[in-house]
Amino acid sequence: MTYCVGLLVDRGLVFMSDTRTNAGIDNISVVSKMKTWEVPGERFLCLLSAGNLATTQSTVSLLEERLLAPAERQPAILTQPSMFQTAKLVGETIKEVISYTTPAGQSADALFSGTFILGGQIKGGRPRLFLIYPEGNFIEAGPDNPFFQIGEHKYGRPIIIRTYDPQMSLEDCAKLLLVSFDSTIRSNLSVGAPIDMQFYETDTMVAGYKRRFELSDEYYQQISGGWSDALKDAFDCLPPFQR
Amino acid sequence: MTYCVGLLVDRGLVFMSDTRTNAGIDNISVVSKMKTWEVPGERFLCLLSAGNLATTQSTVSLLEERLLAPAERQPAILTQPSMFQTAKLVGETIKEVISYTTPAGQSADALFSGTFILGGQIKGGRPRLFLIYPEGNFIEAGPDNPFFQIGEHKYGRPIIIRTYDPQMSLEDCAKLLLVSFDSTIRSNLSVGAPIDMQFYETDTMVAGYKRRFELSDEYYQQISGGWSDALKDAFDCLPPFQR
Repeated sequence: MTYCVGLLVDRGLVFMSDTRTNAGIDNISVVSKMKTWEVPGERFLCLLSAGNLATTQSTVSLLEERLLAPAERQPAILTQPSMFQTAKLVGETIKEVISYTTPAGQSADALFSGTFILGGQIKGGRPRLFLIYPEGNFIEAGPDNPFFQIGEHKYGRPIIIRTYDPQMSLEDCAKLLLVSFDSTIRSNLSVGAPIDMQFYETDTMVAGYKRRFELSDEYYQQISGGWSDALKDAFDCLPPFQR
Repeated sequence: MTYCVGLLVDRGLVFMSDTRTNAGIDNISVVSKMKTWEVPGERFLCLLSAGNLATTQSTVSLLEERLLAPAERQPAILTQPSMFQTAKLVGETIKEVISYTTPAGQSADALFSGTFILGGQIKGGRPRLFLIYPEGNFIEAGPDNPFFQIGEHKYGRPIIIRTYDPQMSLEDCAKLLLVSFDSTIRSNLSVGAPIDMQFYETDTMVAGYKRRFELSDEYYQQISGGWSDALKDAFDCLPPFQR
């Protein structure tokens, strides 16, 4: 499994992804599920992936190769006029990759399926965040659904729902997502550290602050340990149940 | 779907279950998933169910009918010598019911599957809590795994993992489980109020306090609203992230 989140706030975008991949429970590796592209001053893109690793890596490679060989006149991820067109390109590419490996055509249920979160900004537009399905279609984040999760999303969802505020700083988003990731990692073996994080600040058109958190990271330890205590305190503050 | 929890603490057992059942998203009903039996002073049993409603209701009915017709010399849920034997009987019964509807024999993947949580105490023994699988086998709660969840368990799991303490009062267990249920109800349409709750106090051999919470219940409202605020406060108490 996997756990990735893309979060849209007024000040920009925050992306976080785990790095565990497994083929069976006894075959575990560390692979980054976050890929970024930028043309400083013009555009910044971040792509998070969940699903079959061969499929998602092929998709990213195709998006990259097209970037490297513009002469072939194929669509290139860095040459699209808008975030919408970029999402469309990612969708077409994942659909194409799945159709290679699934003789009867692409399908969400396919063994070699994959799902993406794409976020970023292209000059002239606003920061946008998309969830891209294996069928190639996609939905966009907005005020009512300001974040997307892919992979093992359930454990870490309630804390985001209850704490998200569009006016949060990117630092607070980082804190929130680390709590969400810690809750997931504690509950599910298929999600594991290190955790990759990427900031994007609105209208900068350049990759923002980036960091990888190991489990031993001092701040991660503070969050992980501190959250249990903070939750217990919060729990104690609730009115007691009386028969 | 469904959400049910059975929690074992030093002072006894607390059971909680939602009441939503659905055949498709446009066909929703309220059905209790909690069944209790008692012979005051001798035994108390509580059974929570998740899965196909026809299967789980048939299982409960068979356990009941056998109770009503002891002359037929079939096993009766109230005549077993121990909690272990009672769990075994429930397991045999669910297995039998599934085999009616699944020609090729029972299976966890069967369309008409079901899973149970059984807890209680029989005089001479200690309070025990079991998770019973559709295959008829079962596992028991202990110090390392002091609670069982069935149905839509992921959203509400992290709060139980972080807050559970074997020395909690039953009232605190009620508060904890209401938080867990509220997180689940907010995230998943297939889990819905009212919420049934049953206490069992160690060595009483009699049904304890019982309550049904509607969404409009004053205490439930306090928990649901208060938890969002308490979480935000807890979140603010965590050290800020610094680049």
